[in-house]
Amino acid sequence: MLSAETSTSQLQELKNRLLEINNLTSAASLLHWDQATYMPPGGAAARGRQIATLQEIAHQKFTSPQIGELLAQLSSEQPDNHVDSSLIRVTKKDYDRAIQIPAELMARIYQHQAESYVVWGKARPENDFKAVEPYLQKNLALSQELASLFPNQEHIADPLIAEADYGMKATTVRSLFAELRQQLVPMVEAIASQPIPDVNCLHQHFPENQQLDFTLQVIKQIGYDFQKGRQDKTLHPFMTKFSLGDVRITTRVRGNDLSEALFSTIHETGHALYEQGINPEFEGTPLAHGTSAGVHESQSRLWENLVGRSHNFWEYFYPQLQEVFPEQLGNIALETFYQAINKVERSLIRTDADEVTYNLHVMIRFELELQMLEGKLAIQDLPEAWNTAYQNDLGVTPQNDSEGVLQDVHWFVGSIGGMFQGYTLGNIMSAQFYQAALKAHPEISQHIQQGQFSTLHNWLKTNIYQYGSQYTAAEVVERATGSPLTIEPFINYLRSKYALLYPSAF
Amino acid sequence: MLSAETSTSQLQELKNRLLEINNLTSAASLLHWDQATYMPPGGAAARGRQIATLQEIAHQKFTSPQIGELLAQLSSEQPDNHVDSSLIRVTKKDYDRAIQIPAELMARIYQHQAESYVVWGKARPENDFKAVEPYLQKNLALSQELASLFPNQEHIADPLIAEADYGMKATTVRSLFAELRQQLVPMVEAIASQPIPDVNCLHQHFPENQQLDFTLQVIKQIGYDFQKGRQDKTLHPFMTKFSLGDVRITTRVRGNDLSEALFSTIHETGHALYEQGINPEFEGTPLAHGTSAGVHESQSRLWENLVGRSHNFWEYFYPQLQEVFPEQLGNIALETFYQAINKVERSLIRTDADEVTYNLHVMIRFELELQMLEGKLAIQDLPEAWNTAYQNDLGVTPQNDSEGVLQDVHWFVGSIGGMFQGYTLGNIMSAQFYQAALKAHPEISQHIQQGQFSTLHNWLKTNIYQYGSQYTAAEVVERATGSPLTIEPFINYLRSKYALLYPSAF
Repeated sequence: MLSAETSTSQLQELKNRLLEINNLTSAASLLHWDQATYMPPGGAAARGRQIATLQEIAHQKFTSPQIGELLAQLSSEQPDNHVDSSLIRVTKKDYDRAIQIPAELMARIYQHQAESYVVWGKARPENDFKAVEPYLQKNLALSQELASLFPNQEHIADPLIAEADYGMKATTVRSLFAELRQQLVPMVEAIASQPIPDVNCLHQHFPENQQLDFTLQVIKQIGYDFQKGRQDKTLHPFMTKFSLGDVRITTRVRGNDLSEALFSTIHETGHALYEQGINPEFEGTPLAHGTSAGVHESQSRLWENLVGRSHNFWEYFYPQLQEVFPEQLGNIALETFYQAINKVERSLIRTDADEVTYNLHVMIRFELELQMLEGKLAIQDLPEAWNTAYQNDLGVTPQNDSEGVLQDVHWFVGSIGGMFQGYTLGNIMSAQFYQAALKAHPEISQHIQQGQFSTLHNWLKTNIYQYGSQYTAAEVVERATGSPLTIEPFINYLRSKYALLYPSAF
Repeated sequence: MLSAETSTSQLQELKNRLLEINNLTSAASLLHWDQATYMPPGGAAARGRQIATLQEIAHQKFTSPQIGELLAQLSSEQPDNHVDSSLIRVTKKDYDRAIQIPAELMARIYQHQAESYVVWGKARPENDFKAVEPYLQKNLALSQELASLFPNQEHIADPLIAEADYGMKATTVRSLFAELRQQLVPMVEAIASQPIPDVNCLHQHFPENQQLDFTLQVIKQIGYDFQKGRQDKTLHPFMTKFSLGDVRITTRVRGNDLSEALFSTIHETGHALYEQGINPEFEGTPLAHGTSAGVHESQSRLWENLVGRSHNFWEYFYPQLQEVFPEQLGNIALETFYQAINKVERSLIRTDADEVTYNLHVMIRFELELQMLEGKLAIQDLPEAWNTAYQNDLGVTPQNDSEGVLQDVHWFVGSIGGMFQGYTLGNIMSAQFYQAALKAHPEISQHIQQGQFSTLHNWLKTNIYQYGSQYTAAEVVERATGSPLTIEPFINYLRSKYALLYPSAF
């Protein structure tokens, strides 16, 4: 047993070291952000090595024996304070993982991913699966090598899944997804037999600056704090954080597609609200992050879909949108617009998918990942397996690999395994959280209709955001909703919303 | 003696270490740039500690015993290659300096400067010298403590001057400045007796975006490479570099002052052309920087004044400027505009001063710095000494300290000593370099008249830019112009230009 004083000073020492590491990784994040937003082409070569140096030093400092000793000593105590014990728990989890992985393996993985990304970038437009085949092959071997470093696993994918969604295992996710698939496939089939709504109203010419101005106004009203963040344009939208007071989002705008900037901005805003809402006392510690990929995605999807694609939301905002685009939308009824932004269609591209079909895309990828890791699916057979799964679950077959197995970047910049389940876990959670919020505050629907988002935002802050990583994903779900993760609220949400949109299908 | 092979591998080891350090300091520069351009207010607190961490680790790594050993071994050799021997010389100079200064003194200095900056920011608008007096007092003591770490100095200011302008000493600069002052004071007096030209044409309403577009066009044509840089708006203009392929400038625009954005942009472009022009093989080493404050300033001033305020330059650009601002300038003759941008006036504020009076402002500060360091001028007597000097040299007396001793930030964010001489050294050099360029290529004047800047730009690249820090300032001057630093070309330049503008004064 350590004396209370020793323990306090050791905890302080740990926090000081973690803060220094946080300063390095936050700096690396800014270098990434600049690379994606403003960096001139000539800066690219040096930028790569600058980021690598910061990450390398951060890794060295985090895996130092001193951190290990501090954690060993502090873990033998159980601090009264829940925040402190969470800090030690989360840091120890990350540390145990970090020291398990040899630096030379990480170097091989990064090197391979850098090369794969380039090859994929060329192969996708050229529809050339053969070109990426050896890279996927090697990535699979590297992913298996990485996963096998963690002994006593039930499933080889478990350590990869745990990296993003701590507490989740392949078997749990598999059975949760099987349950969901069983509900979704017939629902999608039934909706697909209905006439497709007209979406022409979204595909007129909408000047980019006016789109941006409108989205800024929307996210300001939702509760995004521009004193603690900003929005910039990038090729691919993302959220990034340099401190709890500097949480930025990026947006892509398309002059001929109104939904692109609008919904991707609300999506990233959801991620940002989570990070902006974390207890400021956690600043600079590993608690100052969203607790898992799933919970993070639950917030982007809650704001994007359950709020941003709701009828209430547009009852408030649609007249404003019409004012910004009178020529394009002046004669388009709210109902037409509402149907267009909620069109359900069995399609080939995940990132364009609606909220009913989206999870089928994700679950196909998750299952293929598992099979590859298990050695049951060879890379050369991947395109066929992909196409068959699409035909089975979505009733469509890619005409080529560009719109099939080559569409996502994930397997070229990350592991094969652990990259996709968070999307669907997030969708499931989003409905469970929203249902709990509505139960606590039934007035939320009406408030949204009036453009007042703080009732919902405050409930989310109080029950989810403020805790950062203090609680695990499972704890957050249980504490905020009173029950473990369940697909029921999500299925109920889809049924009740889409029964109104497609009455003959239900 | 080391074997050639050992020496090569040691040099490579040194370069690897320097590259890692360069990656850290370049990252810190990006964090600074972001702080000045896009960072939301909420990011400020964390940003300070992020930058501090990067600088601290870079300092630790640079002052490590391994660097010392490598330098000791490499210095005992004399590589055949001039680039390598320069690299070792410059690194050794920086290293010897860095290890001389205890980390705790640097920490005290940074801490004090951070506090002083805040106090100055409040005291200047409030005209409150008493508020800053103790801070200046302490900064003087710290500056003296820092300087005294370097033994065997002729003058206490020498180590502070050498930090910015290596090779320069207080006595050399003092006598050079005395010579210059002797020429300038009567010249300024003579011009001041003439009627002041009308500058109203510069102070109409000029929309900011149009100003920015025009300056972008100008610096593009001058030769600033936007593939290797970009321009953003800031409160105070500056140039910064993250790699030789990413050299950025910032600009301040005033809607009621055409000269602000225009000339400050050309000024920063001059700094940027120097850095963009350095031999790409020096990337990541201490040779990949301009060689001294003076030579750097010579380039910003050469492009801003000798080119950017020349008659030839505006013969080409003025018609274009008139096209951008037809209402404001359509009826203003080129000569009126030319006289306005070259107005000479004995004034109180250094940053607003014209090129004839500017150096008198600088020399007053330089002399006061020396006297403070020598212990001959007490801080409490500084305002009076300042005002007396202004009356003597410029014939004007500040009505209050805001427009007097409180106007510059330098003594609140840097040492007292070494902060100012570079401006005037740069002005002197700018004319000497330009004269040499014109001697080699008399067609430069005509080319500028035609909007062709590459003849001049190429001469500067070939004779100055490409070398980075491979040669010292004195060597660069000697090699590029065939003679040591001399005030003659600068005086001749002023005489011949201003004799045409103020014929009765000469």
